Amino acid sequence: MKKMQIGIVGYGNIGRGAEKAVLAAPDMELRAIFTRRDVQSIKPISNAPVLPIEAAEKMVGEIDCMILCGGSASDLAEQAPMFAKNFNIVDSYDTHAKIPEYLAEVDKAAVSTTAVISCGWDPGLFSMMRTLFESSLPDGAGYSFWGPGVSQGHSNAVRGVPGVLNAVQYSIPLDSAVESVRNGSRPELSARQKHLRQCYVVAEPGADKQTIEQTIKTMPHFFADYDTTVEFISEAEFAANHKKMPHGGMVLRSGETGGNTQVMEFSLKLESNPEFTASVMIAYARAAVRLAAEKQFGAKTVFDVPLTYLSEKSRADLIRELL
Amino acid sequence: MKKMQIGIVGYGNIGRGAEKAVLAAPDMELRAIFTRRDVQSIKPISNAPVLPIEAAEKMVGEIDCMILCGGSASDLAEQAPMFAKNFNIVDSYDTHAKIPEYLAEVDKAAVSTTAVISCGWDPGLFSMMRTLFESSLPDGAGYSFWGPGVSQGHSNAVRGVPGVLNAVQYSIPLDSAVESVRNGSRPELSARQKHLRQCYVVAEPGADKQTIEQTIKTMPHFFADYDTTVEFISEAEFAANHKKMPHGGMVLRSGETGGNTQVMEFSLKLESNPEFTASVMIAYARAAVRLAAEKQFGAKTVFDVPLTYLSEKSRADLIRELL
Repeated sequence: MKKMQIGIVGYGNIGRGAEKAVLAAPDMELRAIFTRRDVQSIKPISNAPVLPIEAAEKMVGEIDCMILCGGSASDLAEQAPMFAKNFNIVDSYDTHAKIPEYLAEVDKAAVSTTAVISCGWDPGLFSMMRTLFESSLPDGAGYSFWGPGVSQGHSNAVRGVPGVLNAVQYSIPLDSAVESVRNGSRPELSARQKHLRQCYVVAEPGADKQTIEQTIKTMPHFFADYDTTVEFISEAEFAANHKKMPHGGMVLRSGETGGNTQVMEFSLKLESNPEFTASVMIAYARAAVRLAAEKQFGAKTVFDVPLTYLSEKSRADLIRELL
Repeated sequence: MKKMQIGIVGYGNIGRGAEKAVLAAPDMELRAIFTRRDVQSIKPISNAPVLPIEAAEKMVGEIDCMILCGGSASDLAEQAPMFAKNFNIVDSYDTHAKIPEYLAEVDKAAVSTTAVISCGWDPGLFSMMRTLFESSLPDGAGYSFWGPGVSQGHSNAVRGVPGVLNAVQYSIPLDSAVESVRNGSRPELSARQKHLRQCYVVAEPGADKQTIEQTIKTMPHFFADYDTTVEFISEAEFAANHKKMPHGGMVLRSGETGGNTQVMEFSLKLESNPEFTASVMIAYARAAVRLAAEKQFGAKTVFDVPLTYLSEKSRADLIRELL
């Protein structure tokens, strides 16, 4: 059987993760990597050609699915509708509040293609769990916790503070909150009761550390509603201990049936957030290609795609081996 | 909108759980309970009519989905193909090895109906996790653990030992095994290394307890391959402490992407196994009715049904609230 021809658009952390995942998938072949940067500056792991993003339009029909690996704010809002006109696509669009309008835009473009949007782990696997848990246990309360892990958005916010050279922010779910959910007590938890925010900051020489710390801790939306710790470290320590991108988290639901407490839990413990995100996207790329082959066109979410479409295995094998 | 009309076939523990779940679902109405027992002997929680199972054939067109709550070995193999001829059905058929042949039988009968088979939690939710986990993390190893909780099959096996009046068997996942998986080491685990089996036995007066214990511990398939404990208790203690049907378990997968360890985990902690099983089945009953309305007939599994079909909420609401 002919292997699915995959294109990767954007070669940052997720793009590199997608490359590794495609190379590991026996039913896929990496056809090309597309970039807006100087193609000479990209050194892929594989020997896939690196092409300027404009070259994609000449490859309609040669690529079964494009993995869009750009950022939600900067890249995807523009790229997804553009690529969905001619290619099946998957992405990990994660601006939760804007998903309905993004979905509608992509759906308009995906007239004769299939686009699976927001299919990383949150949105993505976590969203699936929230829906499956709520449907299985309607009388209950659901909770999502993130971390321990690096939040890119919060790290960027800290890096934007005057006097900060470099920074990373770890989101830490509070054990007390997780335990109270696991015990079935359905607590009402404030932002502060759910997560702690730990910042590691490399300050510019001579910067006023007290002011930096104060600016971070009082930053609205990002930190003001949380208990936040700020620790100043050297660039060397930053390089040695804070370059990895671990993440993870939990989706929990505790509920009741007939007076009995029932608790459902899903968790991820990831050494590499972007690689895992990419690995999930590759499973949905397989689904996008299969859906398109059945002419199930348009913009889809993880809620719309049966699990049979994700696996390399046949339905019969899944039923025999995993049901 | 007209409520879905639900029938329950079989009024044991799962049947009673299904009744509670239907009563709690705002989009469903319990039309009737069908039994093979004397209808006078059944005292339902609701005021739904209790009818002999033969009465069902006169109600074709009046019931949108039948929840089959019988046992896999004794009831379902016969009932499911019979009911699927005229009704949409769901069941929790759990004889894993025979599922492919059972699916084929039900599929043959479900020509103009939709049947979702094996949709409890294992098979069911656990199966979904095994497939989702394997698809998300192909380079890895998957594990299922059951318990702590009552295994009906093993309890029945103990109750069959001569001299045993009553008994319950708890399956206990071993922490050492679970931890080794969580740590990403992909251990190869024997049956004995994964689960402990605890039996609480009420013996007949004057029975030879040593012989009973020996018979249990050496029973092939059920106990011989495990570390098994046997504790003799009084009927009073049995009644006081061992009448509940808690269960649960875990599906884990540890794998690698680009040299980074990634761990996925799903767990259930259930105070009532039959009520939770029934609650999941009710979500799939909703799916069966919707699939049938779209003429997606035949026998389906949890692998075939998109999550949108399970929820009472609209797709747009799911996307806005849970994606």
